[in-house]
Amino acid sequence: MTNASSAQTQHYEALLELFEQFSQFSSSEKGGINRLAASATDGQARDFLCDWFKQNGLKVLVDGLGNIFGVLELGIGKSEHTFFCGSHLDSQENAGKYDGTLGVAYACISGLIIRDKVTDGSIEPKFGKLVVCNWTNEEGARFQPSLLGSRVFVGGMDAKKALAIVDGDGTSLRDALKEIGYLGSDNPPKPDHYLEVHIEQGRKLEEAALSIANVRSCWGARKLRVEVRGCASHTGPTPMDERKDALLAASQIILGVKEISLNSDQVLHSSVGRIEVEPNSPNTVADKVTLWLELRAEHIKTLDTAEQSLAEATKTLQENSGCSFTVTEREVRDVVSFDEPSRRIVEDAFENAGIDHLSLSTISGHDAVQLQSICPSTLLFVPSHGGVTHSPEEFTSNNDICAGLDATVAALSALITTPLSGHRAGMSHV
Amino acid sequence: MTNASSAQTQHYEALLELFEQFSQFSSSEKGGINRLAASATDGQARDFLCDWFKQNGLKVLVDGLGNIFGVLELGIGKSEHTFFCGSHLDSQENAGKYDGTLGVAYACISGLIIRDKVTDGSIEPKFGKLVVCNWTNEEGARFQPSLLGSRVFVGGMDAKKALAIVDGDGTSLRDALKEIGYLGSDNPPKPDHYLEVHIEQGRKLEEAALSIANVRSCWGARKLRVEVRGCASHTGPTPMDERKDALLAASQIILGVKEISLNSDQVLHSSVGRIEVEPNSPNTVADKVTLWLELRAEHIKTLDTAEQSLAEATKTLQENSGCSFTVTEREVRDVVSFDEPSRRIVEDAFENAGIDHLSLSTISGHDAVQLQSICPSTLLFVPSHGGVTHSPEEFTSNNDICAGLDATVAALSALITTPLSGHRAGMSHV
Repeated sequence: MTNASSAQTQHYEALLELFEQFSQFSSSEKGGINRLAASATDGQARDFLCDWFKQNGLKVLVDGLGNIFGVLELGIGKSEHTFFCGSHLDSQENAGKYDGTLGVAYACISGLIIRDKVTDGSIEPKFGKLVVCNWTNEEGARFQPSLLGSRVFVGGMDAKKALAIVDGDGTSLRDALKEIGYLGSDNPPKPDHYLEVHIEQGRKLEEAALSIANVRSCWGARKLRVEVRGCASHTGPTPMDERKDALLAASQIILGVKEISLNSDQVLHSSVGRIEVEPNSPNTVADKVTLWLELRAEHIKTLDTAEQSLAEATKTLQENSGCSFTVTEREVRDVVSFDEPSRRIVEDAFENAGIDHLSLSTISGHDAVQLQSICPSTLLFVPSHGGVTHSPEEFTSNNDICAGLDATVAALSALITTPLSGHRAGMSHV
Repeated sequence: MTNASSAQTQHYEALLELFEQFSQFSSSEKGGINRLAASATDGQARDFLCDWFKQNGLKVLVDGLGNIFGVLELGIGKSEHTFFCGSHLDSQENAGKYDGTLGVAYACISGLIIRDKVTDGSIEPKFGKLVVCNWTNEEGARFQPSLLGSRVFVGGMDAKKALAIVDGDGTSLRDALKEIGYLGSDNPPKPDHYLEVHIEQGRKLEEAALSIANVRSCWGARKLRVEVRGCASHTGPTPMDERKDALLAASQIILGVKEISLNSDQVLHSSVGRIEVEPNSPNTVADKVTLWLELRAEHIKTLDTAEQSLAEATKTLQENSGCSFTVTEREVRDVVSFDEPSRRIVEDAFENAGIDHLSLSTISGHDAVQLQSICPSTLLFVPSHGGVTHSPEEFTSNNDICAGLDATVAALSALITTPLSGHRAGMSHV
């Protein structure tokens, strides 16, 4: 940043200021945020974004899932092609402030920079519109599944079905969006390219002492909801060997899932992050437990093997515990490769600008993974200190944030000035 | 029941009718009830009980914990001694209809029978008052700890502290009682003897083909609340060996508790029935888990050993899991023996009436256990089919219910006609 021009310095300051402004909506004691999708604080952050769009000349559109679009006309009048750039403002509970929000701030500021570049003639875009977007419920903390707004946008789920999904208190996404005034009805333009900048949520960049990564693919995942059925009885008199304890059986599954990960030939990340117990009384043996279980790996075969092991483990457990196990929801996330020609365009842009970078695979899902199913998509990562994320301790330094802006503008400039025919690779799914 | 007199038949019918009337407040689909303490349906059942008291000439008193007392003056004018008889109307969630409620119905009907017997001169009581009572929050399903109304009544907990306890939604017992109109201020008389009839919640009576048990003691218990602290992080990218997964660690504790029971020299019942997880999001490693853990045994030594094993297990787990374990609440329930002279009075009464009976130890706690700390107390059991309880499948046959009434009246008649000096054994706690 020592060699930053005065214009660059202004951009850095604008980005850091905008990012800090977003963070003020629901800050937590530890410096993080608590902004569940379609909550009151999400509503406040959305209002701020829409105001910012209007103040900066972007036309605001809100679709039926509450996804927000700020449309920048690049004024070239030659192309109907549309370039999307964005991320998400929602967070996990007691989360960090960088996850998603930083990407929205990048999209806002680099959108303005691109407009200026077009206006002063320093770049000649091949896309007529640049749309900054905020996707609803990326996190999946309040409403499951995650990536919900972008999922519906790309046709991966019916809007009606998505709006009917309820949170843990029984509030539907439809009602929650209505409550904050973001159950829209606008029809946004279709994207011809999508660019997202996100924190890495790992520490490969930090270890390599680099500030930007060009993501090549996203791990596949199996997200299962497993229902364990036992039988309610008194925790006092019921003889131990006659209990059908759904929480005890669920605990064995939780340990079993970890075991499967330890025994996997290839790297397999596994978890159970959410559990619901009925009746959840201290003196009644659990009748029913629901587990939200995840398996993630870089290769489909690893996931197939893990799911097979899980099925075998539950079968044995079913025989021994007297409880039954049913997979009530099963989400399959393919391994996704990001558009290869676009990645090369970005790589060339980085090399021309002297920006050292990593090529990475992402483990966690992002809206860009959904968008890649309908248009060439690009995902860039900036560093996360220690790889810590989904925690108030999440941190990206201002230096890295600013370096990320230079890289984002370089990538965006290169992509938006390349004709669409140069972006698209054949099938995006591996 | 084939030899029942016409008066007896009327009493049976009155008992079965009253019991069914109570059951109508919050019936569940499966024939059980759903009547959490101080809920709207508990309020309805309480209103019905108070109306019944008034219609039958009992004076209604409600104390500061919402405990309800129906005072029957036996009209003898000779004794200030007071005889209590009752149980509880609250239930677990989706529970059976017999647990507690049947005991309240027994107390009501046998109270009237005793009054008639006193009026017609067939018995001469040594107690001036007979008080039918309903204790608040016996179950501990909504507010922890259980046995709350009777606990405060006997001085085992400060009323203010008890009223400040909140349910899972943050509603205090004080507000809940106020809401249903049962935050009273009456001063009930002090009991000189307490009698409770309850379903066995085991199947020893059924196996012995008997209809009544005279309970000699109650198992001791340790009820612990254990807080497990991990560290929130993303379930995707966070490397498996760097996670501090509080739910995974809690699962190991749940299995460990079962293990302790299996390895115990003496019979030890153990359970974890309730769990709370934060943030409980499918894609965040659990940060904090709270477990409600119970250990129950007939001998203190067994409990001491079990608690020691648990402490060792958590210590090892703390070293291996990176999570911390803290016992944040610890309730010690002594092994309690019911008043021995009273038990002999009841035994003699049963033998005189030709009522075959069992002598049992109860595993689950009852209000009678609390009352025994301030006055001689008697606990009788009627059968539970298959021992099933805390479940809509809970069942006691009408035949057993009616046989139980005969036994209750026999016991009550004998106890109430014996001078108080004949009841009391020295220290009640073993």
